[in-house]
Amino acid sequence: MSVVHISTKSKSYEVRIEPGLRHTLYNLMHAHKMSDASSFLIITDEHVHDLYIDDVLAGFPKQDHVYVEKVASGESSKSFEVYQKLQERALEIGLDRKSVIIALGGGVIGDLAGFVAATYMRGVRFVQVPTTLLAHDSSVGGKVAINLPGAKNIVGAFFQPELVIYDTEMLHSLPEREWRSGFAEVVKHGFIRDREFLDWLKGQVTSFEQFNDEFLKEMLVQSIGVKADVVSADETEQGIRAYLNFGHTLGHAIEAELGYGELSHGEAVAVGMIFALRLSERVFQIELPVKETITWLETLGYSTNVPKGLSAEQLLASMKKDKKTTGGLIRMVLVEECGKAVLKDVADEPLLDLLHKAIEEGFDDSWN
Amino acid sequence: MSVVHISTKSKSYEVRIEPGLRHTLYNLMHAHKMSDASSFLIITDEHVHDLYIDDVLAGFPKQDHVYVEKVASGESSKSFEVYQKLQERALEIGLDRKSVIIALGGGVIGDLAGFVAATYMRGVRFVQVPTTLLAHDSSVGGKVAINLPGAKNIVGAFFQPELVIYDTEMLHSLPEREWRSGFAEVVKHGFIRDREFLDWLKGQVTSFEQFNDEFLKEMLVQSIGVKADVVSADETEQGIRAYLNFGHTLGHAIEAELGYGELSHGEAVAVGMIFALRLSERVFQIELPVKETITWLETLGYSTNVPKGLSAEQLLASMKKDKKTTGGLIRMVLVEECGKAVLKDVADEPLLDLLHKAIEEGFDDSWN
Repeated sequence: MSVVHISTKSKSYEVRIEPGLRHTLYNLMHAHKMSDASSFLIITDEHVHDLYIDDVLAGFPKQDHVYVEKVASGESSKSFEVYQKLQERALEIGLDRKSVIIALGGGVIGDLAGFVAATYMRGVRFVQVPTTLLAHDSSVGGKVAINLPGAKNIVGAFFQPELVIYDTEMLHSLPEREWRSGFAEVVKHGFIRDREFLDWLKGQVTSFEQFNDEFLKEMLVQSIGVKADVVSADETEQGIRAYLNFGHTLGHAIEAELGYGELSHGEAVAVGMIFALRLSERVFQIELPVKETITWLETLGYSTNVPKGLSAEQLLASMKKDKKTTGGLIRMVLVEECGKAVLKDVADEPLLDLLHKAIEEGFDDSWN
Repeated sequence: MSVVHISTKSKSYEVRIEPGLRHTLYNLMHAHKMSDASSFLIITDEHVHDLYIDDVLAGFPKQDHVYVEKVASGESSKSFEVYQKLQERALEIGLDRKSVIIALGGGVIGDLAGFVAATYMRGVRFVQVPTTLLAHDSSVGGKVAINLPGAKNIVGAFFQPELVIYDTEMLHSLPEREWRSGFAEVVKHGFIRDREFLDWLKGQVTSFEQFNDEFLKEMLVQSIGVKADVVSADETEQGIRAYLNFGHTLGHAIEAELGYGELSHGEAVAVGMIFALRLSERVFQIELPVKETITWLETLGYSTNVPKGLSAEQLLASMKKDKKTTGGLIRMVLVEECGKAVLKDVADEPLLDLLHKAIEEGFDDSWN
């Protein structure tokens, strides 16, 4: 079994990666200090429920004290309303401080169930069981949250899981768009911290169809390794954890201005990464393999230009609403070279200038 | 100025106690690493607002970036609805990660504003400015929470303030019932941890009218000192922090079954403490100064018997709902001697037996 160790100030835990693990959740939890669990609440969405809940439940020796709560699939479930309902439900079924909450699903479920766990009785144990590639990122590191209209992840906590259980078999039911969304975060990990991994990805990945269990395992170990490294050094985003925001400042703005769901998260981040690379070239007066990256990503079905209909001014205003912004300047994650991220406060003018150029000419043309 | 130092795993901070401090909140925060605050949100209730908000605001050099949110006085404000409204408001006025939330009020405000601060953007700094005696307990130690119907403090976090600012002048507007409510927690601190302090209280306090600023300061330093001691050793209630629950297991049950507000929190805790003392005598086969304690508390206006109309069975069932209960037995905080608490899992039968006796005969009669 492949294992990545995460070690933060508040907790140490493992990410276990292997095909078929959904059948043995109970045993894994039992072996990871949860043998004293008084009850389990599995929070999942309708889609994942229909595909996998039977497999998951079959792995529990007894069905009493195992509860399942199903929410609607999609971002809309990260609401105060659903959060409150889940808390009421937890109380109703009598979860206590020895209970374990299991997040069975993608990033939405991990964020939502994690925030329920972080705050029910001021915190009960929880286990992440990610079912998407994108969630390889969100399920590790302990960021949990819900949304307010117009502000994603605005209310939440830093709360680490006890264990992350990654069954790569569950990824095979993902549509291509979901692969693309998740793979952008894999690429991001290469750009900010691990050039070798980035080069390996560029050499290996020419389509998502080649992602068999063996390959996925290797890729996930590397990608989660970068994440583990960063959050171990900086659990609560006082410093280098901000590197993980590479591509996200513009990415989030595109998602918000376009309306969530038009582009997937990773598709928007891909555009944001290309923007950050071009900005890095300009700020540090260096040359980066941007064109090569664009070509590669487009082979994989990404569209790397700013979507039509968005204005530079609108995007800049949206970037300023990001909760990483304090004071007037926008804190951008740039790279000094591939594999080496750096934080830089950037004024409005160069950002606007680049955004205009990107919208009018695209990123692919000759830049200088 | 009197200062108590609190030092937990997650944060170290001070409790500053002095008459008149409400006029200088800004300066105190400035001197305590909050000189970089981008904005302030003062959360208070209608009652405290009308009495003190002008004094507080006058201490801020500039009024821009200082916001005030007023909620209804009383426990009903610790709801999901009010919590969500405050989060929406924080977003609307543009609080960012460098903002500071100030809880100006009693325990309700501290719990509510603290939970908003703990979760807005996954945590922004907050400052406790308690305005009641009861809040000398709740404002220290980082327990913050809101309620669900039938379950107090069920959703919350452990989140320490940056600073606790205690202006004893603000206590003088309290009605006698509030003094009684808060003083029960002072007495509790004596019983669980500091016999000398308990004896000093018994010798000194014969009415609440004698509580001038000088006396309050001395008492608060001692009482908060016990709390500091306990939470420093055990921030997240894995062990001895549970001692603070002395008198609360039955106290909470009385509050819940009688309907919140019939007895004040401290008045219910006083009954719970007497019960815990009698139970301690029985469990450890010792004799404690129960009768003397009853006489003292009654002089101060407490009623120390279980309120009429409650049944032993009903109270026991309610005690079992407490979130400290795991498995079947009820974990009681008892004392081996005055000033020395100990945890003990107690079965239903002896509890029921004692409750029956207490309801039928009162605590004051000869026990054996």
